[in-house]
Amino acid sequence: MKNFRIVAKDGKARVGLLTTSHGVIETPNFNPVGTQATVKALSPKDLNEIGVQMVLANTYHLMLRPGADLIEKFGGLHKFMNWDKPIMTDSGGFQVFSLGAALEHGGSKVLRKNTTPGVELKLHPRGVNSKPRLNKIIEEGVTFQSHIDGSKHILTPEKSIKIQQQLGADLIVAFDDHESAKHNYGEMQKSLELTERWGLRSLKEHKRTGVKLIHPPGGKLEQLMYGVVHGGTHKDLRVRSAKFTDEHFDAVAIGGIYGDKQTLCSIVEWVTSAVSEEKPRHLLGIGEVEDLFNGIERGVDFFDCVAPTRRARNGSLYICPKSGGKKSNSYTLNIRQSKFFSDKKPIDPRCNCYTCTNFSRSYLRHLYMADEILYHELSTYHNIFFIIDLVKRIRETIKDGEFKKFKRGYIDR
Amino acid sequence: MKNFRIVAKDGKARVGLLTTSHGVIETPNFNPVGTQATVKALSPKDLNEIGVQMVLANTYHLMLRPGADLIEKFGGLHKFMNWDKPIMTDSGGFQVFSLGAALEHGGSKVLRKNTTPGVELKLHPRGVNSKPRLNKIIEEGVTFQSHIDGSKHILTPEKSIKIQQQLGADLIVAFDDHESAKHNYGEMQKSLELTERWGLRSLKEHKRTGVKLIHPPGGKLEQLMYGVVHGGTHKDLRVRSAKFTDEHFDAVAIGGIYGDKQTLCSIVEWVTSAVSEEKPRHLLGIGEVEDLFNGIERGVDFFDCVAPTRRARNGSLYICPKSGGKKSNSYTLNIRQSKFFSDKKPIDPRCNCYTCTNFSRSYLRHLYMADEILYHELSTYHNIFFIIDLVKRIRETIKDGEFKKFKRGYIDR
Repeated sequence: MKNFRIVAKDGKARVGLLTTSHGVIETPNFNPVGTQATVKALSPKDLNEIGVQMVLANTYHLMLRPGADLIEKFGGLHKFMNWDKPIMTDSGGFQVFSLGAALEHGGSKVLRKNTTPGVELKLHPRGVNSKPRLNKIIEEGVTFQSHIDGSKHILTPEKSIKIQQQLGADLIVAFDDHESAKHNYGEMQKSLELTERWGLRSLKEHKRTGVKLIHPPGGKLEQLMYGVVHGGTHKDLRVRSAKFTDEHFDAVAIGGIYGDKQTLCSIVEWVTSAVSEEKPRHLLGIGEVEDLFNGIERGVDFFDCVAPTRRARNGSLYICPKSGGKKSNSYTLNIRQSKFFSDKKPIDPRCNCYTCTNFSRSYLRHLYMADEILYHELSTYHNIFFIIDLVKRIRETIKDGEFKKFKRGYIDR
Repeated sequence: MKNFRIVAKDGKARVGLLTTSHGVIETPNFNPVGTQATVKALSPKDLNEIGVQMVLANTYHLMLRPGADLIEKFGGLHKFMNWDKPIMTDSGGFQVFSLGAALEHGGSKVLRKNTTPGVELKLHPRGVNSKPRLNKIIEEGVTFQSHIDGSKHILTPEKSIKIQQQLGADLIVAFDDHESAKHNYGEMQKSLELTERWGLRSLKEHKRTGVKLIHPPGGKLEQLMYGVVHGGTHKDLRVRSAKFTDEHFDAVAIGGIYGDKQTLCSIVEWVTSAVSEEKPRHLLGIGEVEDLFNGIERGVDFFDCVAPTRRARNGSLYICPKSGGKKSNSYTLNIRQSKFFSDKKPIDPRCNCYTCTNFSRSYLRHLYMADEILYHELSTYHNIFFIIDLVKRIRETIKDGEFKKFKRGYIDR
């Protein structure tokens, strides 16, 4: 793909450069989630300081509030939220389907427990439902009720693409159907076929309306489109979906991941082995420390995940192995623990972020216990910095041919 | 007073320099409130960027959480919260008395409506009472129950001073009794006499224990002590209290202010006319736009107030007269209003803060409606910047002999 260039490889792990209308992104890359046109608790100034290269915003949330028409009037999401680096939007498919599909199959708890929703719901809901209510999936698209006010909406491939054009993201995603963990093989196959038809309609709509002239410095906005690979835990369906996506789209996203770490590794392995080398690959909604290593090892280029921001709000703060991070604690400490009451050390003594170079665990715990907003700013800053920095170091180890060694030293058995 | 030097005067308004162990403060000066060892939603980096020269922290809150012993172990509040410029702490008197005195006189609503409590309670209370419960005022001091866990405590002049020494503030306040708006003259007088006795005990304790060696760059920490002028709305009591305070203390704080703007002006006028020129004067808990002009006009040097931070959280954002600010809207707009839905202008087009140079009213309204933490950061940043910038401009007009002209152009009739 002309916009993507691989500059180094170490096994299947690779370092690449993706050129977008808002700048070049180095891969592997982690994209913080900015569901409602903001990465929770961080300003664009913070994101720039941290070294974030792209954020992912949620089409579903923005279409409902403040609405795509408003954002288009501002010249797109970049201007609306004052972020001049690349933005990716998702299709909205996951949000309108996730609960619905789960309900349909009586498996909402299972599904929701094992998936990372990929959206950052608000911190302090004002007594409204925080999930959309699904009405119906039909060939045309899906009808649903807003989680904000219960109003009825329809999302179709054409509408998803139109909204993503209005938002003006650099990377967009074709509208896709979502399988449930409780689907049997036949249902998975049917769902996959719908994703394929919707994918082609998404492409057709994008070609028909043409690339919108929005606001990037150069003038014209080029929107690259991801297709989404589905197929649950069935190898043949995943491979079929991977090949279909590779054939038709600019880039390959892997969706519908649930299950344990081993399942994730298998799915990623099947998909990256089936697609061409030169297209970017995004693992949707995944991005914990172990997942990053496992995904990159198997050739994944992009990750997005709410874990760093959500964990921060819950008191769960990343630490590296030398500071006590390990698989069993998910490479985190919990700042709420009383043992941190008088701890003068920073969250992670090996971290160079603003929070770690200026504040103690004791102070952060105090802010958490006192319910202070500054806690959210400082903790989120650290968690995002930690992941961005880790992925940066991984890029360096790939260039040096030291990725596997670095992984062995980082991820304990 | 050797630490304070007046460098310009315009009528009774004056520009001065107060030298503390953590640097020189230009007066008139506005001090944001950092109740729980943080100015709500702002980091020390933000405060420095804005140009804040001193913050005021609350002794009552910090003694209960995380406790003065912990903060002392860190070398004081400066190190604990990572703020290396001057800090003032209050005596804790207002917090333990305000509700109590009001309850005692059956006037809690009246008192609380007309006063600015001077503390920033937390944004999202976790189901605990947000006010202390008063038990008893005795000659020794006052017993009360914690608003956090109901535990019983006593605060005396000696204890208040000890805590303020542990916190290591540059400016501290003598322990004082608080009158209620419903007190009659005799009760006011009794309360004032108690304040005088407690003030002398505070001074004695401070001299006895000596100046603590804490952590400022120079080595020794010099703590200047404010006495607090009380006396309600009675001119003779205010003048008596002003003279007593002037005679005994390094600096003069004016407390117990309630009532309308005219009453405030009268009280300030009585006090500043009765004290010596060369001592700093602090108007406790006051700092709305009009109050700043009225206070400075009458010779006040310092202000602290939760209004900028609290207003921000409620959607009330400062605008100057040229942007529509006036007495009747308290120099604010309310960002919640639907008319701002698509407004591309910044909060105040004449403001140069980070928020106003980068974000629209529309975006801020969206963040507010979506309950995003970034709203609090950006809105608080603007409101504090606005007030700090206004007071800075006032200092300049005093130097230029243009204060009255500036006030006439700013405050409408």
